[in-house]
Amino acid sequence: MMLDTRKKILIVGLGLIGGSYAKALRKLGFRISAITLNREDIDYSIENGIIDEGFTEVTEESVSEAELIIFALYPKTFREWIEKYQHFFKSGALITDVTGVKSSVVYEIQEMLRPDVEFIAAHPMAGKEVYGVQNSDPKIFHGANYIVTPTDKNTESAIEDCLELGRLMGFERVSVLSPEKHDEMIGFVSQLTHCIAVSLMNCYDGEKLQDYTGDSFRDLTRIARINDEMWSELFLLNKETLLEQMDKFLLEFGKLRKTLETGDRETMREMMKISTARRALFDKK
Amino acid sequence: MMLDTRKKILIVGLGLIGGSYAKALRKLGFRISAITLNREDIDYSIENGIIDEGFTEVTEESVSEAELIIFALYPKTFREWIEKYQHFFKSGALITDVTGVKSSVVYEIQEMLRPDVEFIAAHPMAGKEVYGVQNSDPKIFHGANYIVTPTDKNTESAIEDCLELGRLMGFERVSVLSPEKHDEMIGFVSQLTHCIAVSLMNCYDGEKLQDYTGDSFRDLTRIARINDEMWSELFLLNKETLLEQMDKFLLEFGKLRKTLETGDRETMREMMKISTARRALFDKK
Repeated sequence: MMLDTRKKILIVGLGLIGGSYAKALRKLGFRISAITLNREDIDYSIENGIIDEGFTEVTEESVSEAELIIFALYPKTFREWIEKYQHFFKSGALITDVTGVKSSVVYEIQEMLRPDVEFIAAHPMAGKEVYGVQNSDPKIFHGANYIVTPTDKNTESAIEDCLELGRLMGFERVSVLSPEKHDEMIGFVSQLTHCIAVSLMNCYDGEKLQDYTGDSFRDLTRIARINDEMWSELFLLNKETLLEQMDKFLLEFGKLRKTLETGDRETMREMMKISTARRALFDKK
Repeated sequence: MMLDTRKKILIVGLGLIGGSYAKALRKLGFRISAITLNREDIDYSIENGIIDEGFTEVTEESVSEAELIIFALYPKTFREWIEKYQHFFKSGALITDVTGVKSSVVYEIQEMLRPDVEFIAAHPMAGKEVYGVQNSDPKIFHGANYIVTPTDKNTESAIEDCLELGRLMGFERVSVLSPEKHDEMIGFVSQLTHCIAVSLMNCYDGEKLQDYTGDSFRDLTRIARINDEMWSELFLLNKETLLEQMDKFLLEFGKLRKTLETGDRETMREMMKISTARRALFDKK
């Protein structure tokens, strides 16, 4: 069904991710329209062949023809949008998103949504340290994970279509997780790692640090360049799960600290062996 | 003085770093001999033009002609070597090392050393997740830092020669720090980051983790593949400083955790802004 390029796709929010979706899908032959706040982003995107048409206002005209609508907005803006404008949706439309947290978003949106449209949530685990449609690039999807998080309100065909969307755009691994499992996993592999990087950069105000750093510090703090507006919202929307993950990390870090304090070299080496074996699994892939 | 390629160089310990030193220096025209435990490492190195001659035993013949001796051993082995074999040194020889911690090594070696030879300590901040002379490659020095850590026992000419050695081998930044400053800095940018990566990999035993991870987790845990024998020795030799760095990190991480727990979004964003600004300094370079 997805491969039917007569389907009209609307992207709401034309930033880095929205723009990368647009580029990937238009290349496949889909007709892409977009709604985004800034006129210059629309102009840039039309001039560069990223979208076919664009709007800065949400109107019946801009929404009602789309059969697939992709929301690439911050979670709270996404919810407000649905509340305010869902009466414009075409009956039978399929809605998906790119939001980085799920439990706190999916159920609420599905609850408030008109019964004749379906929302199937997805998380493209891709990004860059730069923003805006001007930096969009579907290559960020290559080698990346795309996770669909259905609930029991979703139909099999919507789940399949959403998975197909991920495959079509070039994601390497496409999978299904419950919203709760997704948030636990993302709390660990993404949010906790960002917490660590931010804390680490807050530790040291030495300006000359860059003169002495090796690759390890550079790699570890790359993600310390963070969009504070977006990430603070995502952290707070995943509060309980992220607190759990932070506490798990604190437990292990504390254990390692204790081996150092007491000179327990055997336990220290044991922890290093575990980390080495587990990390080696990644490099095999 | 360093550029005088008639100078004979001996490398003790022909692993990843020793081998990379050998390759870089031989290319410049120096005659390189090496002492290392395994005969096959010697054979490999001679066959591949990495060294001119090699020995598996420490004898007068293998040591006494060298004018510059580079120790690429674990700290404790280095100390034992000096105790046992320093009578073989040629009078006037210059000794340097590659050890990753300094305060606990430099003073002790200088204290026990014959008065007619000089030890000037250095730390090449370069490495790989693989070991052995077979993986050695002087390209790991490009873009990397090389730090000389003199004490008041060192002469100006030895400091200059040691800095020149770093430049000749292709390090991008060559600098001087006191052993104490070095250990503080390395405790932060290298040891603490390895502690974090090890703790993080110890948190989670899910085998399927690699199916869901993005680049951030991959980058952050690259250094979780760690040589437990070497790193546990280095951690314990820098115990007090590393404990301080771990505690500084715990303080900031705890502060961030608190902003999440109490929903203090403003302070959370403030920490993110600080980390973003500080990390941006690195990317400018």
